Amino acid sequence: MKTKPHVVIVGGGFGGLETAKRLRKADVRVTLIDRRNYHLFQPLLYQVATGGLSPANIATPLRAILGKQANCEVVLAEVTGFDVANQTLLLADGELEYDILVVAAGATHSYFGRDDWEPLAPGLKTIGDATQIRRRIYLAFEAAERETDPELRTALMTFVIVGGGPTGVELAGALSEIAEHTLKHDFRHINPEDARIMIVEAGPHLLGFYPEELCKRAEEKVRCFNIEVHTHTKLVEITGEHVRLQTGEGDVVVPTRTVLWGAGVKANPLGKKLAAACAMETDRAGHVAVNEHLNLAGHENVYVIGDIATCLGEQGKPLPGLAAVAIQQGAYVAKTIAARANQTWKPTPFRYHDRGTMATIGRAAGVAQIGKRQFCGFFAWLLWLFVHLMLIVQFQNRVLILWQWAWNYVTFNRSARLITGDEEEVIVRPHHKREPEHRDADERESLV
Amino acid sequence: MKTKPHVVIVGGGFGGLETAKRLRKADVRVTLIDRRNYHLFQPLLYQVATGGLSPANIATPLRAILGKQANCEVVLAEVTGFDVANQTLLLADGELEYDILVVAAGATHSYFGRDDWEPLAPGLKTIGDATQIRRRIYLAFEAAERETDPELRTALMTFVIVGGGPTGVELAGALSEIAEHTLKHDFRHINPEDARIMIVEAGPHLLGFYPEELCKRAEEKVRCFNIEVHTHTKLVEITGEHVRLQTGEGDVVVPTRTVLWGAGVKANPLGKKLAAACAMETDRAGHVAVNEHLNLAGHENVYVIGDIATCLGEQGKPLPGLAAVAIQQGAYVAKTIAARANQTWKPTPFRYHDRGTMATIGRAAGVAQIGKRQFCGFFAWLLWLFVHLMLIVQFQNRVLILWQWAWNYVTFNRSARLITGDEEEVIVRPHHKREPEHRDADERESLV
Repeated sequence: MKTKPHVVIVGGGFGGLETAKRLRKADVRVTLIDRRNYHLFQPLLYQVATGGLSPANIATPLRAILGKQANCEVVLAEVTGFDVANQTLLLADGELEYDILVVAAGATHSYFGRDDWEPLAPGLKTIGDATQIRRRIYLAFEAAERETDPELRTALMTFVIVGGGPTGVELAGALSEIAEHTLKHDFRHINPEDARIMIVEAGPHLLGFYPEELCKRAEEKVRCFNIEVHTHTKLVEITGEHVRLQTGEGDVVVPTRTVLWGAGVKANPLGKKLAAACAMETDRAGHVAVNEHLNLAGHENVYVIGDIATCLGEQGKPLPGLAAVAIQQGAYVAKTIAARANQTWKPTPFRYHDRGTMATIGRAAGVAQIGKRQFCGFFAWLLWLFVHLMLIVQFQNRVLILWQWAWNYVTFNRSARLITGDEEEVIVRPHHKREPEHRDADERESLV
Repeated sequence: MKTKPHVVIVGGGFGGLETAKRLRKADVRVTLIDRRNYHLFQPLLYQVATGGLSPANIATPLRAILGKQANCEVVLAEVTGFDVANQTLLLADGELEYDILVVAAGATHSYFGRDDWEPLAPGLKTIGDATQIRRRIYLAFEAAERETDPELRTALMTFVIVGGGPTGVELAGALSEIAEHTLKHDFRHINPEDARIMIVEAGPHLLGFYPEELCKRAEEKVRCFNIEVHTHTKLVEITGEHVRLQTGEGDVVVPTRTVLWGAGVKANPLGKKLAAACAMETDRAGHVAVNEHLNLAGHENVYVIGDIATCLGEQGKPLPGLAAVAIQQGAYVAKTIAARANQTWKPTPFRYHDRGTMATIGRAAGVAQIGKRQFCGFFAWLLWLFVHLMLIVQFQNRVLILWQWAWNYVTFNRSARLITGDEEEVIVRPHHKREPEHRDADERESLV
């Protein structure tokens, strides 16, 4: 049995999982290592962060996906480093030998050297991040409801989203839906529609990777949802009480209690460790450069794929950090490994097929580019919905999500808007006292 | 507006929520206070703890339920005490005056004076508890998979459930389903069916509140699911490594890493505070005694209902801590308050109508007693399913849960078996090293 090559895959995201699944019939032994026991469908994480979906709707246990694949084993462990000379992976609680290594450890947020901002402006990469953001958003409204000082109340109802990429735009869109619809009848002392939602983007446009024409149309749509778009604006300070923004016309201080981070992404720290083990360098964001076969230069048995790698596309530009890239790379690597195990490999370089990109903007609005065709609005949103449903790994989840979306769409409801947390504490405002003032029904109607 | 009496309800569980909803048309102002922003459907919490349902499936935001009720306000706050003389409720961050107070703060676990056991044997009352238990169960299997020492592996796969009431029996039944079905194909080094599931009960029977005949039939059913039933057995020690059990034939030490607590319940600590504020005593478990109108003796404007109260039934026995009791009490109190506000109140004592009790035992098996009729088996389970679905507050959740149950029933799957936690750490076993041994497909088939 020892004769079969042992393929060790680090990471159960889109790239790693695809590699493992595609090796189903290959004459190899596969071990997939992950710190978490589930594959996370990250493109929908913003829905968890805003209470539209539950974590389990977008996460599937890795063992449920790979349990019946006889040549594959799942190990729940933390990778701490690489001993490339001895073909050994270092774990927090042991080590693991490999013949072939596939590193697909993904990315994490980058605060551009301001790691002290992390607790003040949580990013959105894990389920823990999503439930934390959910908690912050809904607690901010709860605190505003009980706040008597109008200035503090405004600060509590101001939401600053840093970064105008897809994550930032999707979060802003969902927040706007929460404020305008979901919470419509929920409060007695605030009007959730008064919430101020700001996207702060240093570059000239939101969703800047699209052609300028499309960007502009998307921005218009975003503004329709009562979202303030601040492009050419740099965030220079975050405190618990306010943010400071650098604009062309000088600095502006915006009082806010909720800052969400959708700005920067860097490779998983394992990228740097792998590079160091191979006497290589990473780029500034920690990405490991790979050759056209997705190998590390000089290490034919080490593949690096997905968001942790820098892989040059046809025009010499690095491929974007998209699920589609990771999946195609995983499929390519699996094919290569299987062919090498059979000694039928004919070296052909990896080539990314761009089938289009898309993002949602808000309720019933999206942007998409497919080949040369551009869409902005309802059709793009429908397309986005359809594609993402089809991509969700498990059949059960597909039905659950479809049902919840349909329900949320019709009723404007977000049933997963639970405030949970280990401490299960509520925001305690030590300095205030408010006795509820009840309004009569008619009075309320005029407000909402 | 100040003329309308202000009804303050503490707790958004079954009792408090029912009171608030039933006061919809009453000529009063209602404020419902809870530490959490959701109503939790506790009878299904064991399903969350075992990964069958997501937290949001059994929790509904209080504001979503009460948002359109114009005379009602929801306040997210922590109650810290009572100033009965001044008709004021003390909050962690302020205070709140009331004309009428309804205390429905519920119950929590009791470790019978051994509070040091709490971290070793988590109970099941909150969503935080449920996700923690879920985490422990699935991490135990993960750790066993990687464990090389057979004794440690056995300890990791031994689950001790303390208490043979409905919670203990339901947890054990769900655990047995996980071990025998859900995880069937998931592991390579352990056979989940080898899991040892024990219920430890000090009394003579499981589900001891049922007639003896029914208890015995239920116990037989429980044993069919490969669950060890240890009645007449007292837990006397819990360490991280083992439990010590006192049986008729002397002490037994069982090595285990997972102990779950379903044994004791005591009233919310607010019970003692309320009693002290009224110069009364509680019973040993902290329950506040109420009169036949569910009032505190001498305090006609203070009602205490649900699990925090002791209310005597027709035979002079205290009513059990059931959702049905709390709901009926809530309805009675609301009716009384509304009638008093109208001055149409004719004093009639509260009377509990026992419409039956039921519990699940495991896959497709339940116990039920409805009047004099007793059921044990598939029909009782169907009944249980139907009644609980009908009770779930929100329509959306009803469909979601039905779908997940049907799916789980047909596929034996539990899609919500995520290991999550704030630290998101995995169990680290510092002293071991194991290289995965892969088995061929046929070898595996023989095992499962």
